Amino acid sequence: MRNAYAIGLDVGGTRIAAGLVERKGRIVREVKLSTPKGSGPFAIVDAIVDAVSEITSGLHPSEIAGVGIGLPAQIDFTRQSVEFCTNLPLAGIDMRGLVMSRLKYPVTIDNDGNTAALGESRYGAAKGIKDFVMVTLGTGVGGGVFIGGKLHRGSRGFAGEIGHMVIVVDGPECPCGGHGHLESFSARPAVIREARAAAETYRGSSITRLAGGDADAITAEIVIEAANAGDEAAVEVMSRVGDMLGEGLVGLVNVLNPEAIIVGGGIGESCPMVSKRAAGRIAAEALAGRRDVRVLIAELGNDAGVAGAAALAFDDHDSREGIH
Amino acid sequence: MRNAYAIGLDVGGTRIAAGLVERKGRIVREVKLSTPKGSGPFAIVDAIVDAVSEITSGLHPSEIAGVGIGLPAQIDFTRQSVEFCTNLPLAGIDMRGLVMSRLKYPVTIDNDGNTAALGESRYGAAKGIKDFVMVTLGTGVGGGVFIGGKLHRGSRGFAGEIGHMVIVVDGPECPCGGHGHLESFSARPAVIREARAAAETYRGSSITRLAGGDADAITAEIVIEAANAGDEAAVEVMSRVGDMLGEGLVGLVNVLNPEAIIVGGGIGESCPMVSKRAAGRIAAEALAGRRDVRVLIAELGNDAGVAGAAALAFDDHDSREGIH
Repeated sequence: MRNAYAIGLDVGGTRIAAGLVERKGRIVREVKLSTPKGSGPFAIVDAIVDAVSEITSGLHPSEIAGVGIGLPAQIDFTRQSVEFCTNLPLAGIDMRGLVMSRLKYPVTIDNDGNTAALGESRYGAAKGIKDFVMVTLGTGVGGGVFIGGKLHRGSRGFAGEIGHMVIVVDGPECPCGGHGHLESFSARPAVIREARAAAETYRGSSITRLAGGDADAITAEIVIEAANAGDEAAVEVMSRVGDMLGEGLVGLVNVLNPEAIIVGGGIGESCPMVSKRAAGRIAAEALAGRRDVRVLIAELGNDAGVAGAAALAFDDHDSREGIH
Repeated sequence: MRNAYAIGLDVGGTRIAAGLVERKGRIVREVKLSTPKGSGPFAIVDAIVDAVSEITSGLHPSEIAGVGIGLPAQIDFTRQSVEFCTNLPLAGIDMRGLVMSRLKYPVTIDNDGNTAALGESRYGAAKGIKDFVMVTLGTGVGGGVFIGGKLHRGSRGFAGEIGHMVIVVDGPECPCGGHGHLESFSARPAVIREARAAAETYRGSSITRLAGGDADAITAEIVIEAANAGDEAAVEVMSRVGDMLGEGLVGLVNVLNPEAIIVGGGIGESCPMVSKRAAGRIAAEALAGRRDVRVLIAELGNDAGVAGAAALAFDDHDSREGIH
């Protein structure tokens, strides 16, 4: 069938996932590979092209609506250029042009927070919700803002950086160079930092046991496992992550009055107390009339990146073809 | 001429202004009166009706597109209801219905931050700008968000409360009951509080002289006058107001990527160093690629309330008539 599939690519610092995705979001074929390290941007482009070739083998080009690529980068969506990328050597690389010159399909690139929002909107927790804020908690804090049923891109296509709201003026430095941003409190490095301190204070904490007695071996996953099992130190750490998330969201709820907040990313999805605490802060601190905002956990899990990037490709195809 | 005019009403805690406004924004007639105090909501409705009758005398009803009312209140725009109002007894009052039953014109009500944004968009500093954030600094901090050429209202019509973003977690209490909100640092009460402290420290400050040596007589206007003249204490106070505004705006710039920020309200318009300092913070702290946001001072000044409310009435009329 014509344009029955889109190809979604989720390019991360350690892993690339490529999926052949049906219009309704089902991933029918998928390949995952390690992100080529230390061999420059062209090795990443090669890997993407190889992955796409593999999952499209046997299909006619007319069956493919297009390719969507989600990148952990600041994207000028209007120009389709990669402006900044912390973990991969992609800044200034014409990723879209390079991939498109090697494949027969239209290519669209976007920030991975935006593709996550697109995916949840089309296939996940935000289906049917026109005004929502997506926030992803992982290595960093990212997200996307839906307004009137559309991803809000802003004047240069940079919108959606929810992790970079100031919630503590003159607070700790953020990886972006700013200070006191939400990301400094609610992403993986903050979880690990706080958990090390908490494990010192609560000597019997299962965080220490799960890390084999080695503070350097503490990961966010360990802290979340301990918190979900009720470990006091871990609960304290993850509650704080949720509270700080909530403080950032109070501002967005007051400014944007969204219908829902979707909490995703590895941390958001595997640790329910994070979104619960955030919802509690919103209920206590947001202006009345806005407190009924629904705080939901993202539904796409590990598929979010691939499905969201495919949604991007479908959306781009449909707007080219004038389909709404 | 049919629908040549709209009536704009700016209802404040101390004053009501009503204007007969042409499509291009010129105010051709205006009346100002003191807000009736202590005699309940119906006296306010009476005052509004009297003011409208006065400025429309001699006109044919068909010449009036409608009445717009800006209120210092939380408005559920969708239901056209007043949900909360700190300074006037209007909460729960069907202001729109009461005024409409006494006048022959369609009536629309909105929050005064939103009407300010509408006014600047149609007649002022934001003309031709599709994505901007309006922030008004006065008794409180209010505002409005324009996205894609339209005022963003959110799921229940409550959007735009820029003053109620958390910028200091667990910071000082805000009049709304929240903590560490932008309003706690950049509105009139903060100016006065900080100026009293600064006048203590800088004994020779002209703040003290302008206030006749009486700390209780210090007003925001005095502090701004002193700051604009270069008084060290006053400059420190107003710079801080601008810096804190900038910290709040960094978050909005990163999340919404607007083309411009319009700074209005009595404080924003009369003290240029406030928007200058805010722009400096944005340039230093926002994510690269978004720092070129223009920070502009509102242009409508004392006319903002009336002209903006008239813009609301024109917009409402045009959308009823299917005019775009």
